[in-house]
Amino acid sequence: MENLTQKIAELGKRRGFFFQSSEAYGGVSGFQTYGPEGAELKRNIEDSWRNTFSRGLGHREIQAPTIMHEPVFQASGHLDGFDDMIIECPECETSSRADHLVEDNTDINEAEAFSPEQIEGLIKEHDLVCPDCGNSLSDVEVEDFNLMFETNIGPGSGQKGYLRPETAQGIFVEFPRLKQYARNQLPFGITQIGKAYRNEISPRKGLVRVREFTQAELEHFIDPDEDKPDISRVENVELLLYPVNKQEENGENYVEASVKEAVNEGIVNEWVAYYLGIAKEWYVEIGVDMERFRFRQHQPDERAHYASDCWDAEALIDGDWIEIAGFAYRGCYDLTKHGKHSDSEREFSVFKEYDEPETVEKTKIEVDMSVLGPEFGDKASEIAEKIERKVELAPEVAEEGPIFVHLDGEEYAIDSDTVSVKKEKEKKTGEEVVPHVVEPSFGVGRTVYAILAHSYYEDIVDGEERRLLRLESEVAPTEVAVFPLMNKEGLGEKAREIAERLRDYGFSVKYDDSGNIGKRYRRQDEVGTPLCVTVDYETFEQEPETVTVRERDSTEQERVRVEELEEALIARL
Amino acid sequence: MENLTQKIAELGKRRGFFFQSSEAYGGVSGFQTYGPEGAELKRNIEDSWRNTFSRGLGHREIQAPTIMHEPVFQASGHLDGFDDMIIECPECETSSRADHLVEDNTDINEAEAFSPEQIEGLIKEHDLVCPDCGNSLSDVEVEDFNLMFETNIGPGSGQKGYLRPETAQGIFVEFPRLKQYARNQLPFGITQIGKAYRNEISPRKGLVRVREFTQAELEHFIDPDEDKPDISRVENVELLLYPVNKQEENGENYVEASVKEAVNEGIVNEWVAYYLGIAKEWYVEIGVDMERFRFRQHQPDERAHYASDCWDAEALIDGDWIEIAGFAYRGCYDLTKHGKHSDSEREFSVFKEYDEPETVEKTKIEVDMSVLGPEFGDKASEIAEKIERKVELAPEVAEEGPIFVHLDGEEYAIDSDTVSVKKEKEKKTGEEVVPHVVEPSFGVGRTVYAILAHSYYEDIVDGEERRLLRLESEVAPTEVAVFPLMNKEGLGEKAREIAERLRDYGFSVKYDDSGNIGKRYRRQDEVGTPLCVTVDYETFEQEPETVTVRERDSTEQERVRVEELEEALIARL
Repeated sequence: MENLTQKIAELGKRRGFFFQSSEAYGGVSGFQTYGPEGAELKRNIEDSWRNTFSRGLGHREIQAPTIMHEPVFQASGHLDGFDDMIIECPECETSSRADHLVEDNTDINEAEAFSPEQIEGLIKEHDLVCPDCGNSLSDVEVEDFNLMFETNIGPGSGQKGYLRPETAQGIFVEFPRLKQYARNQLPFGITQIGKAYRNEISPRKGLVRVREFTQAELEHFIDPDEDKPDISRVENVELLLYPVNKQEENGENYVEASVKEAVNEGIVNEWVAYYLGIAKEWYVEIGVDMERFRFRQHQPDERAHYASDCWDAEALIDGDWIEIAGFAYRGCYDLTKHGKHSDSEREFSVFKEYDEPETVEKTKIEVDMSVLGPEFGDKASEIAEKIERKVELAPEVAEEGPIFVHLDGEEYAIDSDTVSVKKEKEKKTGEEVVPHVVEPSFGVGRTVYAILAHSYYEDIVDGEERRLLRLESEVAPTEVAVFPLMNKEGLGEKAREIAERLRDYGFSVKYDDSGNIGKRYRRQDEVGTPLCVTVDYETFEQEPETVTVRERDSTEQERVRVEELEEALIARL
Repeated sequence: MENLTQKIAELGKRRGFFFQSSEAYGGVSGFQTYGPEGAELKRNIEDSWRNTFSRGLGHREIQAPTIMHEPVFQASGHLDGFDDMIIECPECETSSRADHLVEDNTDINEAEAFSPEQIEGLIKEHDLVCPDCGNSLSDVEVEDFNLMFETNIGPGSGQKGYLRPETAQGIFVEFPRLKQYARNQLPFGITQIGKAYRNEISPRKGLVRVREFTQAELEHFIDPDEDKPDISRVENVELLLYPVNKQEENGENYVEASVKEAVNEGIVNEWVAYYLGIAKEWYVEIGVDMERFRFRQHQPDERAHYASDCWDAEALIDGDWIEIAGFAYRGCYDLTKHGKHSDSEREFSVFKEYDEPETVEKTKIEVDMSVLGPEFGDKASEIAEKIERKVELAPEVAEEGPIFVHLDGEEYAIDSDTVSVKKEKEKKTGEEVVPHVVEPSFGVGRTVYAILAHSYYEDIVDGEERRLLRLESEVAPTEVAVFPLMNKEGLGEKAREIAERLRDYGFSVKYDDSGNIGKRYRRQDEVGTPLCVTVDYETFEQEPETVTVRERDSTEQERVRVEELEEALIARL
């Protein structure tokens, strides 16, 4: 029997949601094209995300290039650490992801967290073989494979560039300018919806593990000492949580808690919990099935070292939990890194002015060079530096002499009178703060996929099997399809006129007059259109005119007055 | 004095329209980031394009990957022919575009059309030097430089991939599936808005010549024998045309003609003219200044060899005419190429059913193998084939024998009685048609740039210089800004309440309460917000409540009742 994944793939291809790209040329795995229906569904999801996570929260969106040059990824750590483990069969030269090989053939889950050496050991221990040719892979080296696509910018050797592996870096590197647009005031949030690229070793079919994908990311820059999320906004949103301690028990024992409870009981970081609440409400709105949905906390060895708390949103499809979003408290890691690597540290922090200027005491150490100079000659300044450092660490040594310093294997005793230590008062109007980053990060393609899978149903209508997508009108490619029963005797004209009117009103509308009416209904059911309006012979028989409105899920039809059509449709959407 | 380009660059940076990417790391030329205002302006332009060229014309949009593998570009011709001419200084190793070097330092325009050898000759003749170090470039070789960004897909040597240089190829390669969604009926149109990449040798500053950019393309697939554009839709739209024959005269002599006239007088191909008309109307709507706009026809040596007619939309900025869109009649070139290279020729054509099946006469040739077999043994079938071919070419030879055929140096005489020629009637229900392609192709970034440049104004208001963008409300990042005069005594609350109400109504709204009111107006003028609403102390003094509505262009303010605000704003937008 076909599983859901296969059914969605078949429907995706046949109805134009998504399919393997460039199939006429054999295609390359990991690249999918969104057909007309899929592109509309995806765009609706993006618009809805934008309304919720960007405009709705007062954040602002930018659009950065997908190619960035090498220094950016040296700073971000992607050049050194963004690897998967690869093993190449010496016999047939097929490359496999070494950790997946272990996961697929042993009881071990989450093998990603192991080191290449540990994976090598496991492959040997279980005597694993090449999935393609069956050759033994014991004693074959497991190597790191960087997942970034590399290219050259400009002619000649040019500059190395990489396709960004996450949209986030496009936001972080522009922080110096973005903070200006926020008038140097924390908190502020920047969003981006755009392509990201990962050169996966073994992409899977469909939209789940692809090499080119769309992310919708929000980087919320906050002052860790002052800014608090507005928990009240989502305090009663119920979350199904799968924290680390429950994952260690046998079986899937979840915690059900409201956002407020999750924060108060210390299960989730307050900023992360705030965004889990907003995300949960959004997922309900766009049609992710809450019976097949959970938030799972990352294991400590699974999350990035800088992230203090990290949760995934996961959707259940064919028995697998698929990550569709991640929520991380990234601390000051990103901006600190970019500040250091770009040599413009201050640009990656925000100057926080105090309400009142503060008076701070500063220790000022001075060494009398008129004494040291004649005595030590060209070693004088080095000795002076050493004295300063010593006194800075332990001011008491300056109180009674001598002070001993070592230089080039010799010990010098310096009279403490040559050193003066003064305390000076200074006015400080504020300080540089490196913002912390809260990052909700969504995979748009995976969200498309989860929605398709969760809205797919089969039933029997009039004795015939029917396949349908119960898409929410918020995301459905078409809200209302308008048909003439036949394209003759004025029915077509009337239907086109109604379609135009509904379009002007703001509905997304399709007009269709080809094939028999039953087939047209089925076609709309398969692409998830919630309502169909049909102009038939009765339309003109009555005064005022009427049409039928058919509901996708129930297939029930009702006659509605044309003049009241908009209201009737809104009531049903 | 600053020119317009510099002013737009400064405004772009300061107000967040666009700026050089990754500046903290020195940046790489050819990559620009859209800040919050620019990203909104760009998205509004894309939405408007979609409404006009995709939904508005009944076309459908897809989203294909930006990375495609090598065979696609072998077929499309980009691998061999998508080059610019490059010259590298032997002294300082700076690479320059050889044709631009010639254009910039001689009277020659359009040097792109010359061959590398011709360019070498011109460089020598004019003794041109390296623009960077002044070294002579005579006797330096001019080479072709492919403009595609290359990368490797998958581990190991993997497969070669390229970042697409135009979105169009993502549509062409999927034609086999796309025609199914159109139920195998011509005409149909497919659009795509997405990234394209060109590894320019010397990118220019700003949004005009960049290495990563956004295209909005429409591929309209038509039956060249049957489909005609609906000229009546745009027949009276006036076009400012600069055809090839006028370009050859001295001075800029234009032809002013309606779409209908341009077609009837044979100035523009009818399909191209149809889209020039639609584009012209769209440009007016989004705020391209028609005083600084023209359609220019490509010179025969400038246009691709397969394009039978090609026009650019050009915007005048700082004395330069900038191409912002191209309109090409591409014939059957693209689909034929993909049909041949992918070995699935039929997939790249559409079966056109005749209204009535046609009866065609077919010649059927049969050779009697029971005679040839015994006589010629293992040579019999080869001889039979030769006879068939001979008779096919000249049926009369079968009428009286013998028929002479040659095989392996020997001549055989075959009795014509062993060959029977029959005429059979066959029913033919239709034929394969390779669609022609009409392609309107828009540079989104250049459109953003043209709109910024054409809407930029300076004036004096209250004795102070003012810079403003007269953006159309259709594309302005913000339609209405709402301010409290001060953020106290309930003014802030009231203003926020009004902002929320207007947002719910469907306006794009910004709320701002920081700084003095004059500065806030100036800020909105600079980002092109058409209207500002201010809540002041008078708001509460009157019954019913009133606010001021300020118009950007005139700076005039009027008091409007809060309860009638939506209508008042619509009337002014």
